[in-house]
Amino acid sequence: MATGEARFPEMPEIAGIRLGTAMAGIKRPGQRDLVVIEICEGAHAAATFTRNAFRAAPVRVAQQHLTVATPRYLLINTGNANAGNGEAGIAAARDCCAALAERVEVLPESVLPYSTGVIGEPLPVERIRGGLDGALSALNASGWSAAAEGILTTDTRPKGATTQVALSSGTVTLNGIAKGAGMIRPNMATMLAFLATDAAIEPVRLQQLLREGVEHSFNRITIDSDTSTNDACTLVATGCGSALLNEEDIAAFRDALIKVLQTLAHAIVRDGEGATKFVTIDVEQARSEEEALEVAFSVAHSPLVKTALYASDANWGRLLMAVGKAPVEQLDVERIGIDLNGVTIAEKGGRAADYTEEAGATEMAKEDIVITIRLGRGNQKARVWTSDLSHDYVSINADYRS
Amino acid sequence: MATGEARFPEMPEIAGIRLGTAMAGIKRPGQRDLVVIEICEGAHAAATFTRNAFRAAPVRVAQQHLTVATPRYLLINTGNANAGNGEAGIAAARDCCAALAERVEVLPESVLPYSTGVIGEPLPVERIRGGLDGALSALNASGWSAAAEGILTTDTRPKGATTQVALSSGTVTLNGIAKGAGMIRPNMATMLAFLATDAAIEPVRLQQLLREGVEHSFNRITIDSDTSTNDACTLVATGCGSALLNEEDIAAFRDALIKVLQTLAHAIVRDGEGATKFVTIDVEQARSEEEALEVAFSVAHSPLVKTALYASDANWGRLLMAVGKAPVEQLDVERIGIDLNGVTIAEKGGRAADYTEEAGATEMAKEDIVITIRLGRGNQKARVWTSDLSHDYVSINADYRS
Repeated sequence: MATGEARFPEMPEIAGIRLGTAMAGIKRPGQRDLVVIEICEGAHAAATFTRNAFRAAPVRVAQQHLTVATPRYLLINTGNANAGNGEAGIAAARDCCAALAERVEVLPESVLPYSTGVIGEPLPVERIRGGLDGALSALNASGWSAAAEGILTTDTRPKGATTQVALSSGTVTLNGIAKGAGMIRPNMATMLAFLATDAAIEPVRLQQLLREGVEHSFNRITIDSDTSTNDACTLVATGCGSALLNEEDIAAFRDALIKVLQTLAHAIVRDGEGATKFVTIDVEQARSEEEALEVAFSVAHSPLVKTALYASDANWGRLLMAVGKAPVEQLDVERIGIDLNGVTIAEKGGRAADYTEEAGATEMAKEDIVITIRLGRGNQKARVWTSDLSHDYVSINADYRS
Repeated sequence: MATGEARFPEMPEIAGIRLGTAMAGIKRPGQRDLVVIEICEGAHAAATFTRNAFRAAPVRVAQQHLTVATPRYLLINTGNANAGNGEAGIAAARDCCAALAERVEVLPESVLPYSTGVIGEPLPVERIRGGLDGALSALNASGWSAAAEGILTTDTRPKGATTQVALSSGTVTLNGIAKGAGMIRPNMATMLAFLATDAAIEPVRLQQLLREGVEHSFNRITIDSDTSTNDACTLVATGCGSALLNEEDIAAFRDALIKVLQTLAHAIVRDGEGATKFVTIDVEQARSEEEALEVAFSVAHSPLVKTALYASDANWGRLLMAVGKAPVEQLDVERIGIDLNGVTIAEKGGRAADYTEEAGATEMAKEDIVITIRLGRGNQKARVWTSDLSHDYVSINADYRS
């Protein structure tokens, strides 16, 4: 299941970026499972990775490579996460990078590895090697759509976003693709996301922009509260186009980046495992953004709220329960109000006086739900996005070895 | 569903305690939904309540009454939680206490109210009033089993535990009953639990013993991570029997109390909504008990671990993921080991060398699972109990308005 329309945008080319895919036989036959992204010389890259202590081997190798060299190639496989494989996993990730580096004559450290799929199975290095020539010969600047397909696991649809930014010295383009589906409670970045722009951006600025953007997108979504071992988000600025020259340019690019990242983050939630609802949780009138986030995630992670959403049950009692269990000091329940798509369902800590079950049922029947929670104790706010908890979520994760 | 055997013990009488039940029509007809517990004069009572900021009206009234008078009657209804009802809920809880107090000629503050069931519906005060005479006329010292039935909501079986403690001046008895099922991640106490002993115990000591016991029982279980608005655990010491005279007596009673509380806590997990597994999570070699608990609850709350348990899938990768996402500083994954019912499945952060899928599958097929996690960074430990996440959990909570 998934919510919203399955739209993949027309992705324009990004000067300095080519993408190639192959079917290496890591997943079932006939499925793209290997992606190579080529980056021109002179580009800069920024990246954020999972904060799970069990960082998968490719995450650890990518982090190390980033300290040594500027990335020229991103090497992504699905079907195997290369996580929990100890030293053998590290060696396998390095072997794959070396195999690609040898073919394209760059340093092995110029290749960043990414893996997603089953945890704890040895990475099929020979199959990945065997798929490299095909992926390299398929490299082309219009390969974004194929690459978006090539990185999927239990996702039901490819996810892409694109925008253009008018800078003072010309217009630049920003493309992004992502995968998600389950084990989604990113803490730095989501499962896998790759973005590229032709803008020229200095490395420190690029990392700062990505970190800020991720904080307002991937770090604000949750499907099942489980933080993956393989989360990675990478942004490449090829520098083939215009540069960020002043504060206005930086602001314009920042806005565009957040927009693209949020589009991808929303696409991941809409395609969450078993998702039948797309839920926006707005917490307002908090004392700090931190406590607003605590309340928002307490509601977003509550199995009882999520099953009520699945059942289209405007169960404001469960919402109050989930607000109340958040670790917020001295929460005064008498001040709390909750809206459902703009319909006030609770106020002063109880059912709103003019609320009717019919009005609540009408809103809950919709696929897109906005829950607004007013804490009545300050002027800070936070927004997160989540999905519901359905029978299909249980089926998918009781059947799938991730 | 539920795990383990549905055994309700023979509950002996506790001198000074009588219990009566009635069918007041709050739940479906023909179901016990009203319970009165009478406590003799001179008894002491201790209680712990939910830490959810949305404490239900009966919790707030009970807390206030405890500051004014010594409890003589506990008045419990199921079918309606009297939560989220604002000032009207407080008034309703007080009305019920007053109606009972009038009949038995005690102060209204000598009655403690407890409610469990649907949130946000007005408490049917008239039905409760109407059931009082029946419950009072049914009062008898051997009413423990009927009372255990009378407090159930979505539970599939009554839950009771009893033990005897040899004190220096004689043997005393300790009985307990509880209800659970869903919205179970107690933070102070569980949904509802009532315990009584004929021992003579001073109020301060009694509260301390209960607090300590709850910390090692109800505060160590989780079914769905959702903390109820109505959690309450009450322990009455009637003083009709022997007194705790020295440190040995206190230690003996403490051990017995923890045993009874743990038996009730386990019964709640075994009867968790949709539960097909009873899972013990032991975290060892932690730097502090606090971090051991963080890791244990991170694993116990993980939907991906819980669906793997439901599927009897020895998915050590998900276990490592759930350990790794716990908020523990500088966790060294290379030191971590995990056992499943004593079979080592992971060591040094990866699959154990001599582990076979067959050995894991054999253990996971069992109904009772012990997951032992060694962090390799200290000598502190913690244990929690939980259930799995099944299709039935989703069905129950998508259908039931709690």
